[in-house]
Order: sequence, then C-alpha cells, then structure tokens
Amino acid sequence: MKKTIGILGGMGPLATVDLYKKIVLSTAADGDNDHIRVYIDGNSAIPDRTAAILSGGPDPVPEMLSALRSLEKCGADCVIMPCNTAHHFLPRLQAETALPFIDMTAVTAAVCAERYPGKRACLLGTKGTIAARIYDGALEAAGVDFLVPNGDEQTELMRLIYDVVKASKPLEPETEAWHELLTELIGRGAEYFILACTELPILADHLGHPGPFVDPTLELAKAAIRFCGYRVK
Amino acid sequence: MKKTIGILGGMGPLATVDLYKKIVLSTAADGDNDHIRVYIDGNSAIPDRTAAILSGGPDPVPEMLSALRSLEKCGADCVIMPCNTAHHFLPRLQAETALPFIDMTAVTAAVCAERYPGKRACLLGTKGTIAARIYDGALEAAGVDFLVPNGDEQTELMRLIYDVVKASKPLEPETEAWHELLTELIGRGAEYFILACTELPILADHLGHPGPFVDPTLELAKAAIRFCGYRVK
Repeated sequence: MKKTIGILGGMGPLATVDLYKKIVLSTAADGDNDHIRVYIDGNSAIPDRTAAILSGGPDPVPEMLSALRSLEKCGADCVIMPCNTAHHFLPRLQAETALPFIDMTAVTAAVCAERYPGKRACLLGTKGTIAARIYDGALEAAGVDFLVPNGDEQTELMRLIYDVVKASKPLEPETEAWHELLTELIGRGAEYFILACTELPILADHLGHPGPFVDPTLELAKAAIRFCGYRVK
Repeated sequence: MKKTIGILGGMGPLATVDLYKKIVLSTAADGDNDHIRVYIDGNSAIPDRTAAILSGGPDPVPEMLSALRSLEKCGADCVIMPCNTAHHFLPRLQAETALPFIDMTAVTAAVCAERYPGKRACLLGTKGTIAARIYDGALEAAGVDFLVPNGDEQTELMRLIYDVVKASKPLEPETEAWHELLTELIGRGAEYFILACTELPILADHLGHPGPFVDPTLELAKAAIRFCGYRVK
C-alpha cells in the first residue's frame, strides 16, 4: 500500500507551493493517477519562527499543532515542513503525534556528505536558523564542514528573505545583490551552498547562482517520495 | 472573521500547484501572516474526468467526495476545484455538502463578458469539457459568443494536455505546436482564448501565446480571495 504525504505549510506560503511542486515534478509518473496523494494545511496564522527564537515573539507551536491535527484528520502517513527554522520546534511537535516527521536537516546533511565529501559548505538561512544552530547537529553528525554568514551578510540575507520573497516583491531587481552576496561568501571559503531557508531556492531558481548548491526543499521532496513507496524521477 | 479556502485537488497535481501559487501571488500581503489559510487534498486517485464523461470510465465522484470530506474535516469555508472538466460533477458534489463551491465556469464567463464585450471567444479544453458542454450554460447566460476547436485541433490539444503537461514532459519542445494551434484558431475567427483546462495556463505561462486569453485558474483564485475577505493584489 502506497503512502500519503502531509505538508505542514504556510511558513511561508510560496515555500509551500515550491515544495508541493518539487514533489510533483520529482515523482516518476505518466499521468495524474501515478502521483502521490498530498494533504496540505497552509496555515498562514503560524507566528514567525525566527522572531520566536530570537526576540520573544509568540510561540508558533500551537498554530503548528493546529495544522498537524488537520493532517492527522486527513489521514497523512508522514509530515514534512517547508520551513527550515520551524525544525527548531520539531521535537515538541513529534512528541504530540504518532505520525513520523521527515527531518529536512538530516536529509540535507546526508546529501551534502555524499555529494561534496571533504568540501566546505556555506549554510544560508534565517537568523533564527543560524542562531538556534538548527543544522549544526545534523551536519556535524554527517561530518560536513561548514561556515555561516557574518553579521552584514546575514542582514542582507534577511532582507532578501523577508522584504523580497516573503513580501511577494519582484525578484529580478535583486539579481546583483544575490550574486554579490554569494560571491563574497565564495571569497571567504564557501565551496558550495546549503539553501537552508525555503525562500532561497525560489531566489536561486529565478536569479541563478554563482556556485553549486544543495536545495533542502528538493531533497526533502525526494525523501518523502521514497518514504511513500514511489520512484524519484 | 476572515475565511479559509479548501482546494479539491489532484486533477492534475501541477494544476493544483498552479492554483495555490496564483492564490498566494494574487493576495495583497506583506508577510506570511497576511495570507489566506489554504487546505489542499491533492487526491491523485480521482479517476480521469474526461474518460468518465466520454467513454464509460470509472465514476470520479467517490474519490472527489473523499477529498471533499478531508476539506470539511479541516474546516474549510469554501471549495474550489482546479479542473474544468470536474465541474461536470459539481451539482452531485454540491448536493453532498453544506460547504459552498465557487464555480470556475461562472466566474470565467463573467470575466469574459466584462473584459471582451462583443468579441468572439475560443473555448479551449479537454474533449470532456467540450462534449459535456461544461461552459456553454455559463457563457450563454453571460452573453458570450464562442467557438470550439474542430476534430483535429481537439486531438492536438488533448496531446498537449495529456502527453505533455500531465505527463510532466518538457514544455519547450512544444512551443511551435502550441503557437500553430492558436494561430489556426485565430484564422477561424477566435478573438481571444478561454484556457478552460487547468493544464493550459501552464503551457501559456511557459511558451507564450499569440492572442489575448482569460485564465480560469487565475480568475478562480481571485474570486476565492475575495470570498475569503482578502484583497486582490
């Protein structure tokens, strides 16, 4: 019996669209009926995860649990979250449900270790993801060496994530800013990038990128397809 | 109190992604929390609607009802379907639920009448949509004059819908075939196109189009945004 996917989404909405699209496009299928049944709760009421971690913003877990309950009621067989920062709260969520979460950080770290052995990654994410060291445990366990943006670089990255992608602003005017940021990080030793905020693959897809990168959203989509017993294209 | 959207999806999966994306991009929002809560059941088990209408294929209504029950359990305030052909079954579905469906055909006909008064539309859809006259009542009620593809044109359209978009094949190699088909229809009197199969806006977005068109998926997204009490961007 093939399984179904539950997406605990809305963090943000475009990243949820992106994950769903990557699941569809990465599934080996010849028609509608060869695809995976996917349930989504795009709960736009989930408070900002970075604000909760860094500056005492409202706890996002109650609204995340509300979405988790939707997915349980639908009958999902696993849960995935298209928000890296949200993974900070994964242990609290997993304690509340029998449904297995597929952990985007663990999936991504395994891909990095296999694809770029011995190379130095640059971890790009929100301030919340970096400060809460959401990826650190998974990357260290997989033996992946990595650097993170400095203060100014992080501020620029937050602007691109929040004031551009999350605000649904046009992406093209940011082409130079995006390439400049990545080129600076290559100068500081980055050999490839982990796009560890779900808004960043959207930027990379539209604006290109000067270095190789791992897209955790895509790797999560592939891991979920395999979990459900389907074939990755 | 603002309302939520339920998408009865999976018909096909990429069209469901496209509708969700159009809702997100058409909502006036400055951040995640300004968006609409959207529930989706992308039920890939729904049998082909055209086959059911034209050639005695399995009835899609039981699996559509299964998805409708998911959306009811989640607490959706309205239901929308990113499949034009599926609207043939809307009266049977509406009879089974107190949740209001927003009818894509009625929304589209109203937009045609307002945007292109006195002009002749060309209705592009699956064989099922054309044969079951899914749009005819709504277009006639709105006073919209229209033509439909002839046999060969319809066969070519079905190939683009089923063998290309629904099969997740590369779109670019079809650029010439797509433009040729539309140009032929313009020669036969089409003054604008109704892209009344949810796979067609995906083709138009990627491959361009030689004539003006109405995108029912986009118009449905905007109607749902307004129904929920949000502002269209």
